[in-house]
Amino acid sequence: MIPVRLVSTGKALPSEQLSSEQLDQRLGHAAGHTFKASGVRLRHVAAAAETQSQLAAAALHDALKNASLPASSIDLLISACGVQEQALPSTACFIAEQAGLKPGTPAFDVNASCLSFMAGLRVAAGLLATGGYTRIALVSSDLASRGVDWSEPEASLIFGDGAAAVILEKGGAGQGIRAFKLETYPEGRSYCEIRAGGTRRNPRIGVEPGDFLFRMDGKAVFKLASKLMPSFLSGLMAETGDDLSSIDVVVPHQASHLGMAHAAKRLGIPAEKVVDIYATHGNQVAASIPTALHEAVISGRAKPGTRALLMGTAAGLTIGGLVLDL
Amino acid sequence: MIPVRLVSTGKALPSEQLSSEQLDQRLGHAAGHTFKASGVRLRHVAAAAETQSQLAAAALHDALKNASLPASSIDLLISACGVQEQALPSTACFIAEQAGLKPGTPAFDVNASCLSFMAGLRVAAGLLATGGYTRIALVSSDLASRGVDWSEPEASLIFGDGAAAVILEKGGAGQGIRAFKLETYPEGRSYCEIRAGGTRRNPRIGVEPGDFLFRMDGKAVFKLASKLMPSFLSGLMAETGDDLSSIDVVVPHQASHLGMAHAAKRLGIPAEKVVDIYATHGNQVAASIPTALHEAVISGRAKPGTRALLMGTAAGLTIGGLVLDL
Repeated sequence: MIPVRLVSTGKALPSEQLSSEQLDQRLGHAAGHTFKASGVRLRHVAAAAETQSQLAAAALHDALKNASLPASSIDLLISACGVQEQALPSTACFIAEQAGLKPGTPAFDVNASCLSFMAGLRVAAGLLATGGYTRIALVSSDLASRGVDWSEPEASLIFGDGAAAVILEKGGAGQGIRAFKLETYPEGRSYCEIRAGGTRRNPRIGVEPGDFLFRMDGKAVFKLASKLMPSFLSGLMAETGDDLSSIDVVVPHQASHLGMAHAAKRLGIPAEKVVDIYATHGNQVAASIPTALHEAVISGRAKPGTRALLMGTAAGLTIGGLVLDL
Repeated sequence: MIPVRLVSTGKALPSEQLSSEQLDQRLGHAAGHTFKASGVRLRHVAAAAETQSQLAAAALHDALKNASLPASSIDLLISACGVQEQALPSTACFIAEQAGLKPGTPAFDVNASCLSFMAGLRVAAGLLATGGYTRIALVSSDLASRGVDWSEPEASLIFGDGAAAVILEKGGAGQGIRAFKLETYPEGRSYCEIRAGGTRRNPRIGVEPGDFLFRMDGKAVFKLASKLMPSFLSGLMAETGDDLSSIDVVVPHQASHLGMAHAAKRLGIPAEKVVDIYATHGNQVAASIPTALHEAVISGRAKPGTRALLMGTAAGLTIGGLVLDL
């Protein structure tokens, strides 16, 4: 057990809403098509003037408010987004500024695509356990709308923008990460990608407009993830010394309605244990897992003494699971 | 002390060399101008077909070779670059593939701009100390040439491409991180930046060709860093219980020749203790510190029983220092 305590959670949504009915009209689909194809009723979308770091800061302030803590009490900020705000510097610098953290508060990014929050939580627990930090803010914020390709019927309809944050401290007895596993399978590195944004595709080396847009081979992701997940999850639970029945609440990456339903059924997880905010948020990239965790906390499903399983797949292809004793 | 052991180091340089004489000719400067302005005699530049992850994998294989270890023995890869290869997925996925790591080996990114390696080393030590991993590869690779603006007299001449890697295991008695401090001052967030590459500047929201290029206000960086560094370094050394005379070798970020010389003089660090590879490598962004550390290791200046100080400034603006007992 790696001791870590979830002090509080928070979330933020951007100012604009986009219903599936609106998308049907905008994209010229028959009424009901977008909801049927995506499973999303409502997604939230940032206005042009809203930034990823502003949304992150709003989520962080919600988490601070929920614990009655001042921003000045944070002694490390970890940004755990799927996509950066700029190529340079790290997104954490922008969030630190927007959140009004004390100048000098250290800030860096952890990135494991849609599982950045899970990786960041494991990193934060390691840092808290080895000294130097007492209260860490971990924030995920993604604006998928900035890279959605509206001509892609599959990948364009499922996403929503959003941010969520947690405040972490060293855990007491029985509190912490009971098991953690992350596995990366680069054979799936091109199944989900945005090719531009770094050293590979850019004006100097050559870039096309489509390189700035999100590309997904959903079938390939589903096939590889379905093949890997059962034994992955068995291995993860073996680390806990318990089986899946010991889990009180499952917080999955809100990848897609079919993906979540299929995974729960195949893995033998009762639907009532699964936090499902997909229909009203869509897939929020790295912000999905902490947003769902926040909903579980404020609804009382994840409370001290319970055990949560965070799990999901990410671009890379990476699969991950984390068992958290709250 | 956070126990961590530097098992081995490695580096890689891209295929092309670019001397300051060649740059004088290419940019129409008088003979000697580029060297005088930059302090760099020779920089290494990736050919168009070379990728950041290929270079990273070459550095990782050099580190593996130097410890006679197979790639299959790595149980976690942390990519610690300054700029990503793509906006999505994480650069670590590409490095894992290029390096031929075992499928399933977990891989994620840590980003603190030019100090990503230092942050990654602290993160890795925390992970090793809290279980689950026994041998971590930490790799930094940057291709600054993909974003250099040749019309910028100050920022264009100092950079070079490169990569470096270290293999890390849990440390024995007296081995590890004796002190670590990272401080982020967002007032300097725009002093060094590449505005495109993420959600802030892109074809959807608006982007200009210059947004893909590196921008630096060198004077502002120098002024802020000079103001902060003395008390920062005193605080860092106070954590060790020793003073600067206990440091055997200083491994600075190779930011610029004037910056390094000024910092050493102002901080009272004897020049002979400072690893300076700048003239033959330039500023290699996040790859500078691990490349300099590698040179210190292979030259015998950093060996078991010695104490190294890693230090530098990064876009953000972030300043950092790490005292490593080898």
